[in-house]
Amino acid sequence: MQKNTTNTQVMSMTSRDVLTDILRQGAQEMLTMAVENFGGFGRPGLTGAEAIQRVSADVLVEATPTNLTDGEPGKTHIFTAVEKGMDVVSANKGPFVLFYKELGELARKNNCRLHISAATAAALPTLDVARVCLAGTRVLSVEGILNGTTNYVLSRMKEEGCSYDVALKGAQQLGIAETDPSFDVEGKDTASKMVLISNRIFGMSSGIKDIKIEGITKVSLEDISRATRDEKVIKLIGSAELINGKVELNVAPKLLDKEHPLASVNGPEKAISYMTDTMGRITVMGGKSSPVGAAAALLKDLINAHTKSS
Amino acid sequence: MQKNTTNTQVMSMTSRDVLTDILRQGAQEMLTMAVENFGGFGRPGLTGAEAIQRVSADVLVEATPTNLTDGEPGKTHIFTAVEKGMDVVSANKGPFVLFYKELGELARKNNCRLHISAATAAALPTLDVARVCLAGTRVLSVEGILNGTTNYVLSRMKEEGCSYDVALKGAQQLGIAETDPSFDVEGKDTASKMVLISNRIFGMSSGIKDIKIEGITKVSLEDISRATRDEKVIKLIGSAELINGKVELNVAPKLLDKEHPLASVNGPEKAISYMTDTMGRITVMGGKSSPVGAAAALLKDLINAHTKSS
Repeated sequence: MQKNTTNTQVMSMTSRDVLTDILRQGAQEMLTMAVENFGGFGRPGLTGAEAIQRVSADVLVEATPTNLTDGEPGKTHIFTAVEKGMDVVSANKGPFVLFYKELGELARKNNCRLHISAATAAALPTLDVARVCLAGTRVLSVEGILNGTTNYVLSRMKEEGCSYDVALKGAQQLGIAETDPSFDVEGKDTASKMVLISNRIFGMSSGIKDIKIEGITKVSLEDISRATRDEKVIKLIGSAELINGKVELNVAPKLLDKEHPLASVNGPEKAISYMTDTMGRITVMGGKSSPVGAAAALLKDLINAHTKSS
Repeated sequence: MQKNTTNTQVMSMTSRDVLTDILRQGAQEMLTMAVENFGGFGRPGLTGAEAIQRVSADVLVEATPTNLTDGEPGKTHIFTAVEKGMDVVSANKGPFVLFYKELGELARKNNCRLHISAATAAALPTLDVARVCLAGTRVLSVEGILNGTTNYVLSRMKEEGCSYDVALKGAQQLGIAETDPSFDVEGKDTASKMVLISNRIFGMSSGIKDIKIEGITKVSLEDISRATRDEKVIKLIGSAELINGKVELNVAPKLLDKEHPLASVNGPEKAISYMTDTMGRITVMGGKSSPVGAAAALLKDLINAHTKSS
């Protein structure tokens, strides 16, 4: 036996791990049971809301696409579930960005909980870190690189010395940027996430309209080169800062010193940095920007929702 | 009203924040009450263990210095508390590094919980991130810069081109390194933290003897310069890696590519990086390395111990 190897097979000892296994193995079975017990699945014309109404379940996992116009169809799904007293785990930002206050009040009234990790940068743990790891501190400010596409475009402009248009086209060819990239490059995706993060952390009820938003569409190669000459980096930063008891929300390209912990976050990576009173600055980075990463964030919320802190 | 400012004073809405306030305000009051109700405090000859025996309390907060020889006096304090069924929040690594298995079994038997965030890199959230933010993933490997002193010395050698001895003396003059720095520079502090982190994450019962430990005392300026020329960085890394179902534990100076998320962690900063199956890599860095940072980590554990996940 090597000195640096333990002599037992690795065994899980936390109830959380056991729960994970049950959830992983059980999900398929539960789904099968739900479909068998509820004859209506797959019936033409059956809506999601009707299914939620009729199925007996404790939790709704919402994963329809984000819609910032009216929040549908997620809005109806989530309101229906919360009206019934179901907990919600959501990867969909829309309903929470648009109806944060209303959903919060309804959930409190019906004694159910809303879990939105997957909606706020997916596998990058933004809200969990604030809620658990910073418990007892006062958060003074939050800065985040919350959108992988824009960070990829800015990183590529810097590394290859190419224009915004060329970098964006490259990102589209790799499938990192969407055909219509406006939601990302105009800063709206970052702003949506900042709404959710700042509402949770600072107990606010802000909406997109409360954020001053500037995207990356006007960042020129000259801006990037000048920053590099000055030993700085340009990043699209979503920020919330506590100033005289009020929270200022911003999304804009910012010049960061190269020592700033977000300065070295490159490519499609995301990160968030919290400044606190008693713990100083704590920064988290990484987390797969992929459907698997988002699904893992949903599973995480589902597990944490049903586990006492240990 | 400015567009980017919310129009309400910031109000806390989470039960966790309310609890924080109660704890902050209540700690002084509780301490006064405990002293008043228990006439023995301050009596010459009264031991910590006797006080723990006689006072009626739910939680022991242990903050005596780490002792890796026999774990005292913390060992007696913690065993006494757990025998009584008290939860323990500890900043003291010693008893957990030496008696991890015994304390774990006793705590399970007496239905109490052991919270050791403050003992495992204090304000840098190592265990919380693994437990909450990575719930549902399989951790494949852990790499950490877990000791501020050694990271400061290596950073200074690189930045100033000075020898190990000169950098260490500078760290001692600034109060970053202790007069006897051996616990830090020989890698034992990092190894102690790796024991706790890997035991929690992988459900092991390892001790210091299971770790191959190499400190930074043999790192020469030449090594550092060669690394810089090769666009790499030397960092003292504690690591745990899952290989064929077994966990390999190591502490050693390692060459990191400059793109590695731990490569940009400089000065007395600490960081930990988790590689997972479904979320990819997630890295946390920062957290004040100070008595305030350690106290904040104790408060965090105390709050999380008494809050359901929300």
